[in-house]
Amino acid sequence: MKDVDDIPALMADIGRRARSAAEVLAMAAPETKVKALEAAADAVWDRREEIMAANEADLAHGRDKGLSDAMMDRLTLSEDRIAGVVEGLRAVAAQEDPVGSVMAEWDMDSGLHIRRVRTPLGVIGVIYESRPNVTADAGALCLKSGNAVILRGGSESFHSSQAIHACLVAGLEAAGLPADAIQLVPTRERAAVQEMLTMTNTIDVIVPRGGKGLVALVQREARVPVFAHLEGIVHIYIDKEADPQKALDVVLNAKTRRTGICGAAECLLIHRDALDTVGQGVVRALLDREVEVRADETLQAIAGTQAATEEDWGREYLDSVIAARVVEDIDAAIAHIRRYGSQHTDCIITEDDAAAARFFARLDSAIMMRNASTQFADGGEFGMGAEIGIATGKLHARGPVGAMQLTSFKYLVEGDGTVRR
Amino acid sequence: MKDVDDIPALMADIGRRARSAAEVLAMAAPETKVKALEAAADAVWDRREEIMAANEADLAHGRDKGLSDAMMDRLTLSEDRIAGVVEGLRAVAAQEDPVGSVMAEWDMDSGLHIRRVRTPLGVIGVIYESRPNVTADAGALCLKSGNAVILRGGSESFHSSQAIHACLVAGLEAAGLPADAIQLVPTRERAAVQEMLTMTNTIDVIVPRGGKGLVALVQREARVPVFAHLEGIVHIYIDKEADPQKALDVVLNAKTRRTGICGAAECLLIHRDALDTVGQGVVRALLDREVEVRADETLQAIAGTQAATEEDWGREYLDSVIAARVVEDIDAAIAHIRRYGSQHTDCIITEDDAAAARFFARLDSAIMMRNASTQFADGGEFGMGAEIGIATGKLHARGPVGAMQLTSFKYLVEGDGTVRR
Repeated sequence: MKDVDDIPALMADIGRRARSAAEVLAMAAPETKVKALEAAADAVWDRREEIMAANEADLAHGRDKGLSDAMMDRLTLSEDRIAGVVEGLRAVAAQEDPVGSVMAEWDMDSGLHIRRVRTPLGVIGVIYESRPNVTADAGALCLKSGNAVILRGGSESFHSSQAIHACLVAGLEAAGLPADAIQLVPTRERAAVQEMLTMTNTIDVIVPRGGKGLVALVQREARVPVFAHLEGIVHIYIDKEADPQKALDVVLNAKTRRTGICGAAECLLIHRDALDTVGQGVVRALLDREVEVRADETLQAIAGTQAATEEDWGREYLDSVIAARVVEDIDAAIAHIRRYGSQHTDCIITEDDAAAARFFARLDSAIMMRNASTQFADGGEFGMGAEIGIATGKLHARGPVGAMQLTSFKYLVEGDGTVRR
Repeated sequence: MKDVDDIPALMADIGRRARSAAEVLAMAAPETKVKALEAAADAVWDRREEIMAANEADLAHGRDKGLSDAMMDRLTLSEDRIAGVVEGLRAVAAQEDPVGSVMAEWDMDSGLHIRRVRTPLGVIGVIYESRPNVTADAGALCLKSGNAVILRGGSESFHSSQAIHACLVAGLEAAGLPADAIQLVPTRERAAVQEMLTMTNTIDVIVPRGGKGLVALVQREARVPVFAHLEGIVHIYIDKEADPQKALDVVLNAKTRRTGICGAAECLLIHRDALDTVGQGVVRALLDREVEVRADETLQAIAGTQAATEEDWGREYLDSVIAARVVEDIDAAIAHIRRYGSQHTDCIITEDDAAAARFFARLDSAIMMRNASTQFADGGEFGMGAEIGIATGKLHARGPVGAMQLTSFKYLVEGDGTVRR
């Protein structure tokens, strides 16, 4: 079923309108953006019945399509979750405005005074799965950072996203900002995504947020720069010098608090000298919590574990499953993570500062942790307000992508008739 | 004439070796890198006769090919210029090492201590024109920032670049670092450039430095991320409130100090109310310095000017030529620059703070100047030591690209058995 005839023409028009809106938005006063975000939050709450009705249409369609329970859960908008969306919008409104802030300033002997100030990037394309709340988070963060945004949500959340998007537009209009500053692609056709990936004249950066299929498509087809966002194949290494209680607390929280988020632990590496003192207890505690433990040969001695296969290393379960393996030493743990990790978030449990320093220096994940749950891999927990996602690439943005990571900078240089010798 | 049979295989091998070297280099101690740079500087000076002999071969070849005087000049390495190369290497050695430096650190209520520290990017590809000194600058900056680099210099400087590259390798070896950390593509074939642009597994970012042809090729073909580097179509706007002496000093310096660099002024915009008081004097002074002034209708009244055509707006002359036009007001100047500029460097001459603020806010060039010569658009003049070039894109690097801009970052997060609620 084609709902739009000429997708390239549609997308080109959306791109042009976004570019125009971006010029206005880049110069919008902080208080104007706050007003738009607050008005959007009000609109979401006022129209919650409408949004839930739209969501019901998506859910009915999802049931017909036979979506998994996990997908249906992500898709569902209850009044509580809508309250969460409203709260998120207000939190972004309350954040400091990054645009125009002075990152550094200094004087040169030549007489120049140089300031480096934050600027918006321009137009951001966000491609995401069927989580309707991302419509609000991504729209809000782009607005806060002075960028126009083109949102393309998952097709299963089409109606819910449209209903939330209408509230964002109402907010923009209440503040006198161009409605085109936050556009939602009005088609479910996959071709629209393909089109976005090549709109180099009108989109400055693409933020993809989704599963392996989307990431692969983006890596293959994108001509627009991308903030890479790979899976979170999160490892926890229990060092020889691990504290048993900390290991237990951290691993259980990292695996079981929420299994479906990208910071959830997926693989446990245990130093062989810590196996009896710490490792066995941790594995048993995981089994007690009904986590399926896919274990290497040594750990299979623990009753209740299952045998891991080669496919279990480097796998993102997003479920109540963990791979587990005994390693010879810290370097073997590092080698395992280099080979199978995704440079998202990795953790060491140790009381040994030298071991922690070695782990931090020899691995290059966006987030490296020590004695802390990997579930903290989240913009909010880093003090950034909301986030669009966790970037696993190394260019421009890395780790949680909040409003600040959606900015660039320029140099403002002042002289007094100053010339170069 | 093909000098290498299988370019894809050659380049793949270079890429793999760069990736391995990058792993070692990322962990190299600051003093080891300093040692390598100092030893490279010594080698360049010790082997200056050899380098000049290699350069002579390039110059002979260039003469046969009928290169322009400007190109021959850029290609030429005198003993003085070699001394400059040596000085550049020592200056980079003396800079602060960016890798591992803490950009920010803070505590969260959850008990986490978070540090954001600089890391190398990995492998950098530098594609540049026939300026043999860039071999040394680019190699040194990548080494300083802990990155492996694949250098591809212009074919006309093939022998000179090889001779300088051999000195950089000698430096690496003296410090016990892998020779593959700085590789020079050993073929003049253009296919090697094309290959680099798609080596997404082994090159993390491409820094192109060259003319329109190269930039167009890179924009069309690159699958590897690129630090965009457009031309410097540099504008100077003489505002209604310009100080006549500052206008004169700045414009003359910006146009005539060196005409061939990217920060040289290419277009002069004059507020109509400043035409008689400031503008005419500036144009006459340019003519006196034998600058060709391509003028709009109004300015053609000044004897000695030539008529500008539409092609003169938005043109990078890199020569003793300037386009000049009268504008109605500051907004007309801004509109002209938005339409014809390249977001490299643009300047306002004014005593009016409000006008300067408007110019700075409404334009988005990497470098915005007030009452200062645009020839200051240079990493050294910004206090960054050397630079690989001036980035005109907005992602990751912008403005002068020095060692710091060649780094990424990661988060180091420490808890004490800390778990997320």
